[in-house]
Amino acid sequence: MSNELAKTLLAELERIVLIDPHTHINPRAAASKTLADIMGYHYYTELAHSSGMPKERIEEPGLDPKAKVGRLVEYLDRLDNTIQVNWLVQLCRKFFGFQDDRITPQNWEKLYDNAAHKMAEPDWEDQCLKQSGIEQVFLTNDFDDPLTGFNTQRYIPCLRTDDLVFHLAKPEVRKRLAAATNIEFTNTSTLKDAIGKLFTHFVKHNVKACAISIPPWFSPRNPGLHEVRAPLQKILANDPLTFDEQARVSEFVFWTLAEYCAEHHLPFDLMIGVNRRVYPNGVYQGQDLFDQRVSLIQYQDLFNAFPTVTFPVSVLAQISNQELVSYAWIFPNVVTNAHWWYSNIPTYITTDCRARLEAVPRNKQIGYYSDMYKLEFAWPKFQMYRQCLSRVLAEDFVIGRGWTEAEALALGRQVLRGNVETIFGMKNG
Amino acid sequence: MSNELAKTLLAELERIVLIDPHTHINPRAAASKTLADIMGYHYYTELAHSSGMPKERIEEPGLDPKAKVGRLVEYLDRLDNTIQVNWLVQLCRKFFGFQDDRITPQNWEKLYDNAAHKMAEPDWEDQCLKQSGIEQVFLTNDFDDPLTGFNTQRYIPCLRTDDLVFHLAKPEVRKRLAAATNIEFTNTSTLKDAIGKLFTHFVKHNVKACAISIPPWFSPRNPGLHEVRAPLQKILANDPLTFDEQARVSEFVFWTLAEYCAEHHLPFDLMIGVNRRVYPNGVYQGQDLFDQRVSLIQYQDLFNAFPTVTFPVSVLAQISNQELVSYAWIFPNVVTNAHWWYSNIPTYITTDCRARLEAVPRNKQIGYYSDMYKLEFAWPKFQMYRQCLSRVLAEDFVIGRGWTEAEALALGRQVLRGNVETIFGMKNG
Amino acid sequence: MSNELAKTLLAELERIVLIDPHTHINPRAAASKTLADIMGYHYYTELAHSSGMPKERIEEPGLDPKAKVGRLVEYLDRLDNTIQVNWLVQLCRKFFGFQDDRITPQNWEKLYDNAAHKMAEPDWEDQCLKQSGIEQVFLTNDFDDPLTGFNTQRYIPCLRTDDLVFHLAKPEVRKRLAAATNIEFTNTSTLKDAIGKLFTHFVKHNVKACAISIPPWFSPRNPGLHEVRAPLQKILANDPLTFDEQARVSEFVFWTLAEYCAEHHLPFDLMIGVNRRVYPNGVYQGQDLFDQRVSLIQYQDLFNAFPTVTFPVSVLAQISNQELVSYAWIFPNVVTNAHWWYSNIPTYITTDCRARLEAVPRNKQIGYYSDMYKLEFAWPKFQMYRQCLSRVLAEDFVIGRGWTEAEALALGRQVLRGNVETIFGMKNG
Repeated sequence: MSNELAKTLLAELERIVLIDPHTHINPRAAASKTLADIMGYHYYTELAHSSGMPKERIEEPGLDPKAKVGRLVEYLDRLDNTIQVNWLVQLCRKFFGFQDDRITPQNWEKLYDNAAHKMAEPDWEDQCLKQSGIEQVFLTNDFDDPLTGFNTQRYIPCLRTDDLVFHLAKPEVRKRLAAATNIEFTNTSTLKDAIGKLFTHFVKHNVKACAISIPPWFSPRNPGLHEVRAPLQKILANDPLTFDEQARVSEFVFWTLAEYCAEHHLPFDLMIGVNRRVYPNGVYQGQDLFDQRVSLIQYQDLFNAFPTVTFPVSVLAQISNQELVSYAWIFPNVVTNAHWWYSNIPTYITTDCRARLEAVPRNKQIGYYSDMYKLEFAWPKFQMYRQCLSRVLAEDFVIGRGWTEAEALALGRQVLRGNVETIFGMKNG
Repeated sequence: MSNELAKTLLAELERIVLIDPHTHINPRAAASKTLADIMGYHYYTELAHSSGMPKERIEEPGLDPKAKVGRLVEYLDRLDNTIQVNWLVQLCRKFFGFQDDRITPQNWEKLYDNAAHKMAEPDWEDQCLKQSGIEQVFLTNDFDDPLTGFNTQRYIPCLRTDDLVFHLAKPEVRKRLAAATNIEFTNTSTLKDAIGKLFTHFVKHNVKACAISIPPWFSPRNPGLHEVRAPLQKILANDPLTFDEQARVSEFVFWTLAEYCAEHHLPFDLMIGVNRRVYPNGVYQGQDLFDQRVSLIQYQDLFNAFPTVTFPVSVLAQISNQELVSYAWIFPNVVTNAHWWYSNIPTYITTDCRARLEAVPRNKQIGYYSDMYKLEFAWPKFQMYRQCLSRVLAEDFVIGRGWTEAEALALGRQVLRGNVETIFGMKNG
Repeated sequence: MSNELAKTLLAELERIVLIDPHTHINPRAAASKTLADIMGYHYYTELAHSSGMPKERIEEPGLDPKAKVGRLVEYLDRLDNTIQVNWLVQLCRKFFGFQDDRITPQNWEKLYDNAAHKMAEPDWEDQCLKQSGIEQVFLTNDFDDPLTGFNTQRYIPCLRTDDLVFHLAKPEVRKRLAAATNIEFTNTSTLKDAIGKLFTHFVKHNVKACAISIPPWFSPRNPGLHEVRAPLQKILANDPLTFDEQARVSEFVFWTLAEYCAEHHLPFDLMIGVNRRVYPNGVYQGQDLFDQRVSLIQYQDLFNAFPTVTFPVSVLAQISNQELVSYAWIFPNVVTNAHWWYSNIPTYITTDCRARLEAVPRNKQIGYYSDMYKLEFAWPKFQMYRQCLSRVLAEDFVIGRGWTEAEALALGRQVLRGNVETIFGMKNG
C-alpha cells in the first residue's frame, strides 16, 4: 500500500515547477553540448578512477570528447550499482531517447550521437529546463564575477566567498579583489570597504544569497582587530602565515561577510564540513573528503550574533543531521538546506528528510538543491529526492498520522518550492 | 502485513499499566489547569519562536493564559508537521473531546474552554493518570526539596544533582545546601557530610534514583583531594574559579554522589550530552543544545569504579546510541534508558530501539520515560514510543525471527514496565 | 511483495560457496568439540555476564565443559532477544537437529549430548564447512606462527600485526620476533630487516593479507628516523616509554608494514577504532569497547603514500560508515570490508550495506566476514548478512530501480564472493 501511495504522491510532486537554490551552473553555457560534458561530471570521473581507471586515461590533455566518453564507458559496469550512474541512465532515457537500462561499450556510441544531436538544437537550454520543471537556477559566482551577459532573473546570482575567507593570502585573490572593487586594501578597514563594494555590486544584480563551504575545524568568531592586524600585514607583505594567523584573518573576513548579509538582508548559505585536497592525486574535483568530528556548537557565536541573518545550513557528514535538526528547531535563523554531496544518497536523504519533517518547523526546511554543473542533472537529482520525499510523506504522514494526500502534498510543495521563495525573498514565486 | 501486526501488538501494549521513570512533574500541581499549561510546554514555545513568533509575544509579563494560547495557535500551522504538535493534538482528542485534526484560529477557543472545564473537575489528576495507564511517576527533585505534602508512593522522589555538581560556586546553592542539611561545609570532608545528609533525607522519603544531566565535555574521575581543596576554598571565599578548578570540584561532588549511590543501593541516572544556554535569547527552557562529539569512554573510570551502582544512561546525541548499546552489552552496571529530548522523535527512536533489542540483554533496557512537566503528556509520548516499539517487535521479532505474538509482547512488557520495577527496586510492581 | 522477493533472492544467495576473508580459526582445531566451545564464544560469556552472571561462575578454573554450558543456559532467557543468541539457536537447529526455538534449562542437556555426538564424527570439520557453504577460510596468524601443520589452501594465512605495532616494548614480543627471524634488532634498520623476514616467511606460505586492529587515537604517519631512534633504544633497554615515544615506534612499525605490503602486493586489512581493556574486570575477550570520535582523515597520509596497496577497511563505530563509503568512493585503494563487531547487527548492517551499494563501486566492496573462532559460526553469521543483503537488493534494486532478479543476484554474488577473490588475489576462485 505504501508503495502505491508513494507513487501517487510522487506523480503530483513531479508537477511542481521548481527553483533550484544551489548549483554551479555557468549561465553563459548552462546546458551540455555532448555526453562528455555530462559524463565529465566529477561523480563519473572520480568513481571510474576509484574503480580502477587510471587518472591519465581520464585527464589526458587534448582528449577528444567522444573518445573520453568511450573510455569512461569501459568502467561503467563497475559503477552501475551507484545512484550516480542511475542519475546518468535516467537522464539519458528522459532527454535523449535512450531505451536501455545500462550504458555499455555496445550501445554508447549511438547514445552519444543522439545526445549530441539533441543538444545541438538551438533551444536545448530552454527545452531542458522546461522538461525538468525548473524555472530559476541559483548560481555560484566568484566574488569578481561581472554578473553580466546572462539573464539574472532566470540565473540568480549567489556570492560565493570561499576565496575571500580562506585564500586571501594568495596574491591572485587579492589582485582579483582589487580589480573588482578598485580598492587595494591596506588594513582591516579598507578590506571591509572592498568587501562591501562586492555586496553592493551583487545586490545591484539580483543576488539572493551569500554562500561558503567551510572546513570542519573552522569556528566563526568575531576576532579583536588587534588579533587581525599583524596577520593582515604579513599577507600584504607576502610573508607566510601560521595556521593561527590565517584563522584570525578567516574569522575576520567571515564575520565581515555576515555583517554585510545583515545589512543587505541576504541569507548566508553555510556548507559545513569539507576538507579540501585530501586526495591530491585524485581527478579534478574528486579530491575532497571530510572529517565527521565537527559540531554546530562551533557556530553558536555566529547564530547568536546575527539574529536577522537567515543561515540555510548544509552539512557534509550525515551524522551532523541531528544537530542540524536540533539547531533549526531552536534557532529562528537556522534553516535546514538540502542534502549535500556525500550525504546526497537515498539511504541518508530518507533518514534525514524523515527527521527534519518530524522536528523542524515546516517553513524552515529547504528540501533540495541539485548542486549541478550542467542543467541536465537537475531532473534526475531532484527526482531522486522526490522519490525519498514521497515515500516519507506516504509512510509517516498519510499512513502513519492519517493526513490526507492533499495535506501531505502541501507539505511536499512547501519544502520543494514554497520555502525557497520565502527564505530567499523571491518576488516572482 | 507488518502494519496490521504492529497494530495488534500496539493494542496489547496499550493495556499495560506503566511506571514513568523520569518526569519533571510537580507533585503538588501535577495536572494542568488550562491549555496554557499544556501549550506552555517548551516544545511549543520554542518551536513557535523558531518558526518566527517573537519571544516578546510569548513571554509578555502578566499575559492571560487564554490570550497566550490564542497567540501560540497563530503559529501552529507552521509546526503541524512536527511530532510534538502531534502529541498536542492527540492528547486534546483523547482527553478533551477534540475532534479535529488541527488546532486553528477557528477552533481553539472552544477547545480551550472544553479543556478548562474538564481540568476543573476535582479528580482530573486521577482521571488523567487512569486514562493514561500510569500508576507511578518519578519526579525530579531539587536536592533541598522537603519531599512532604504529596504521596511518595505515587510520586516517586528522585534526587536531581546538577546544582551540586556544576553550580556549587553559586552562593545561593550553598545557602540552600546549608539550609537543607544544617551543615555549612568548610572543606571536602564536611561537604561530603552535607551531601550524605541529603541522601539520608531522600532515602527516608522513598527515593528510587539519583539523577544528573551532564555536558559533553565532562568526564567523571576521582580527583585527588589535594586537587580539590584549593578550588573549594576559593568557592567559599566567593573568588572566581578557572574552568579547570570548577572541573575539579565537579568531579569531586560527582564522585561523592556515586559513592552514596553505592552505599544506599540507588541507581544513578546519567543524562549525557547537553550544553546549557547555547541560545541565551531563546524562550524559557528553549536555550539548550548539544555537541555530538562526546563518548562513553569518558565514563570508563566511573563504570569500573562502581560495579554495584546501576547507571541508567540516556544520551542526547542520537549517534551516541551505538556506544550506549555496546557499553550496556559489556558493562553489567550500564543500562539503556529511554530516548531523550532531541533523540525523542520516531525516526531516531525506531532505529535506536531496534539496535538495543538486537544487542542488549533484555533485562537491561528501560524502554521509555516521558520527561513531562504536566501529566497530560505521559499518554501521547508513551504512545509514540509504543508505536515505534510495536513496529520493531512486529517486523524484527514476529516476522523476522518467527517469534509468537505472545513472546514479542512479553519482551515489550519487560522494556515498558518490568525493567522499571527491577532496576529501580519498586516493591509494588 | 518485498518480503517474498527478498526470500527468493536469499535462497539463491545461499547457494553461493564462499571464502570467509577474516576469522580467528585455529586451523589445527577448527571445529568445536562440545557446545562449551560454541557457547564459550565471548558473545555469550560477555552478554551473560552483562545480564547478571558473576564472572567467577563463567571462568571458574577447571570447570567442566558441560557444567559450564549448564551455567550459561541459566542466563539465556535474559539474552534471547539478542541476535547473537539467535545465531546460536540457528546453528543448533541446522547442525545438531535441535528443534526448539529456545535453549532452556529443560532442553539443553539433550542438545549438548546430541551436539557432542555429532561433533565427534571424524569428518565433522569437513561436514561443517560443506553444510555452511564455505570452502576457504582466512586466518589471523601471530607473526611468529610457523604456518605448518595445516592445509594453507583451505586455511589461508593472514599476518596479524597488532603485537608488532603496539606491543614491541614488551620483552616477550621482542623475544618472539627474534626467535621467528633469527634477528635481534638493535636499530630501525635491523628492525625493518626482521619484519621483512616475517613477510618472506608468510609469503612462502600463501599469505593473502596483512591485518591489524587499531585504536581510535592512532594516526599513521611516516616518522623521521630521528624521532624513532631514541624511543627504540629505550625499548631495547627496557626503559618505560611516554605515550608519544610509544606512538613514534608504532608509527614506524606500521609504516614499515605498509612498505612490505607494497613490495609483496599484499592487501593491508585495517580494523579501525577499538579501545582495548576498557572494562578490565570483564570476561575473557569481553573487555574492549570504543570511542566513536575517530575519522578516516587520520589515514589520509597512508592512503596517499601507498597507492599500490589495497586497504580493506573495517570500522567499529557505525557512524564511521559514511566516511568509509566516501573514502572508498574517492580513493582507488580503499575498499569497504564487512561489518565489524559492535556494528555487526542487522540494524546497522542493513543501513551500512544500503549506503555502500548506493555509492561505492561494486568491485570495491567485501560484503562480509565471519570473524569466527570456531567453524560453526560461519553459517549463522553469513546468514544474518545474507538476509540483510537480500532485503536491500529486493527493495532498492529490484523494486526501487527495476533491476532483474538476475542482475541483483550478480551484484550480491560479487560482494559475497567475487570481490574476495579479486581483492585478495585468490587463484582458485
